[in-house]
Amino acid sequence: MNNPSKKISLFGSTGSIGCNSLIVIDSLNSNGYDISVKYLTTNTKIDILAGQIKKYSPAGVVIQDNDAYNEFRSKYDFKGLEVLQGKKGLMEIAERDDHDFLINALVGFSGLEPTIKAIQSNKDIALANKETLVVAGKIITSLTNKFNTRIFPIDSEHSAILQCLQGEDKKNIRRLILTASGGPFLNKTTEEMKNTSVEDALSHPNWKMGKKITIDSATMMNKGLEVIEAKWLFDMESEKIDVVIHPESIIHSMVEFIDGSIKAQLGIPDMKIPIQYSLTHPGRISSGYPKMDFTKFSSLRFEEPDLEKFKCLKIAYEVLKEEGTYPAVMNAANEIAVDLFLKGKIRFTEIPEIIEYNLNNHNNTDDYSLEDIIETDSQIRNQILRKYND
Amino acid sequence: MNNPSKKISLFGSTGSIGCNSLIVIDSLNSNGYDISVKYLTTNTKIDILAGQIKKYSPAGVVIQDNDAYNEFRSKYDFKGLEVLQGKKGLMEIAERDDHDFLINALVGFSGLEPTIKAIQSNKDIALANKETLVVAGKIITSLTNKFNTRIFPIDSEHSAILQCLQGEDKKNIRRLILTASGGPFLNKTTEEMKNTSVEDALSHPNWKMGKKITIDSATMMNKGLEVIEAKWLFDMESEKIDVVIHPESIIHSMVEFIDGSIKAQLGIPDMKIPIQYSLTHPGRISSGYPKMDFTKFSSLRFEEPDLEKFKCLKIAYEVLKEEGTYPAVMNAANEIAVDLFLKGKIRFTEIPEIIEYNLNNHNNTDDYSLEDIIETDSQIRNQILRKYND
Repeated sequence: MNNPSKKISLFGSTGSIGCNSLIVIDSLNSNGYDISVKYLTTNTKIDILAGQIKKYSPAGVVIQDNDAYNEFRSKYDFKGLEVLQGKKGLMEIAERDDHDFLINALVGFSGLEPTIKAIQSNKDIALANKETLVVAGKIITSLTNKFNTRIFPIDSEHSAILQCLQGEDKKNIRRLILTASGGPFLNKTTEEMKNTSVEDALSHPNWKMGKKITIDSATMMNKGLEVIEAKWLFDMESEKIDVVIHPESIIHSMVEFIDGSIKAQLGIPDMKIPIQYSLTHPGRISSGYPKMDFTKFSSLRFEEPDLEKFKCLKIAYEVLKEEGTYPAVMNAANEIAVDLFLKGKIRFTEIPEIIEYNLNNHNNTDDYSLEDIIETDSQIRNQILRKYND
Repeated sequence: MNNPSKKISLFGSTGSIGCNSLIVIDSLNSNGYDISVKYLTTNTKIDILAGQIKKYSPAGVVIQDNDAYNEFRSKYDFKGLEVLQGKKGLMEIAERDDHDFLINALVGFSGLEPTIKAIQSNKDIALANKETLVVAGKIITSLTNKFNTRIFPIDSEHSAILQCLQGEDKKNIRRLILTASGGPFLNKTTEEMKNTSVEDALSHPNWKMGKKITIDSATMMNKGLEVIEAKWLFDMESEKIDVVIHPESIIHSMVEFIDGSIKAQLGIPDMKIPIQYSLTHPGRISSGYPKMDFTKFSSLRFEEPDLEKFKCLKIAYEVLKEEGTYPAVMNAANEIAVDLFLKGKIRFTEIPEIIEYNLNNHNNTDDYSLEDIIETDSQIRNQILRKYND
């Protein structure tokens, strides 16, 4: 049960999820909640961070990037503000006991270790950083059990599933059905995708998000990551997790039960709703967020995903079945490949090729520690960067 | 909580809901339930009833129609079977304590008094007979509170809402959204509706149902009755119940919460799913009923209902606001008008005209007893029948 009084740290506060989280916190606080913001963090966006510091007066901030840290130091001087640096700073904050809740909106693998530190310090977590569960779901779930903490998903799909499961018995689930918009290339051919520009890949039809997740949506790796995330969040067998393409992103996801009944959660695509639910679950709080007007969405469409065209989703399904250290390999290769694509160093269609190559050359094992995951991640990254001289 | 061991009476066993209920009971019994069928009833379909008697060996049956009763008596002789007659027979069975659950699939106002007798005899009820709640919702809900019994809706819409509310706090509901197929005349003009044949009005696009409810679907009075039913089933303010047209009948209904999140229950249009849920709620039992294949429903559409064209829905909304004895007037006038239309005595578009005329000439009151409802019903029926010489 979520407590209306929270002291939170918001990791990744200057990104899309971070900024929306602060709007949600303002709204909750004007509706009887008492959420104070103890820590904010950014990678490089120090000016946005400075604005947030003025408004929320946190006890401290972390700036991950070294240059940005130095720039912040020379440019700003907030009285009494603790300014920490890098991953070390994140880890230190995650461990402190002057707050009780972490909103983790970090991007990619970097979210993993702070999440673990926060769990080990008995904090509940609202998790937007899906990579954490993808690469180390087994370790994370065993830790949340041990430390009796909870993870509330900040993801429209997993929030939808959590809501559909409310009051239902897990044993009655036939399957989870994650919806996928299909991204900007749903109706493009593989040939057209091959020649796509970074700009095209960054124009998502429904959601305004950060660059990494927008490219992941274009390749549909985002849905692949979500399928693996769902396995761990809901303790679900791999074969009970399906994906259906739904271009309008109105139905955020569904649960089919053993009696043939299906429950869906829907609404306009606005991350503030799942963010708020992560902070109020299983309760709800009145919000002034835009309402769904069914007459404006005169048609909701569905189709099967094309796994030959969206190879990343196919890869993720295979990795989901195999488990072990494969998810860490897939995720590391994907993060680097997306970065290379954004820098113009590879074609869009090379992203799945790089991932597949690295999976094929990896010795998978089910017997792994957190250190093995961290080492695998770093090894795969270096391997690809060497090859592409990045 | 529903008990897997039940002794039931099935009122209206030879209709569409009745026959489907028996299929569901067979399926539940092969899945660990222990449901015995103590009583079956029909209005006129004695041969179907005879088949059901052979299969289920009930203790007794009721035949409502006098001629059908006599024909059954001369045609069949089931050893040890008690055969009762008419409304009196239904009332007697509803009151008995040799069973604990009533499935009420009677048509129209005739379902009201047996429902009340069953509640007063401490039975839970699976209710397909929506007219019961429409005409006497206030009386019924006060009785279910007094006798601590429950009503489980057998209606795809209300079953959907019940499922969406599972695990949710009633105070967090912003509105209920009932979906309506719009029936066979969704895309017809009022002029075309005026000249429609009985056959056209009986061809519903999605659901195979009895004649009364099929005509109610064509006029959209069915949705009007459901709006009023929802008010009583879920103790909901009138202004929090909306209708949206959804021609595919895949989303069976929805609930919008105060945070902007919407939950929907969906699936193929098959009454066996809500019937089963009324017997298993809040649990679920595995079923072999056909599964939803999203690729076969490539588009789900929504639009606002046209209240000028579907006058019956407009009337029902007004009656919902006014309450009192108006719902009984509306329902009686509708039942008789539908019957007159089926007999070829009035045009399709005269149905709302007859209802409106009778409402306009009725002195509404909020201070009424069950007897007042019964008298109002009978008075309205006689009034219309006299006028149309039926």
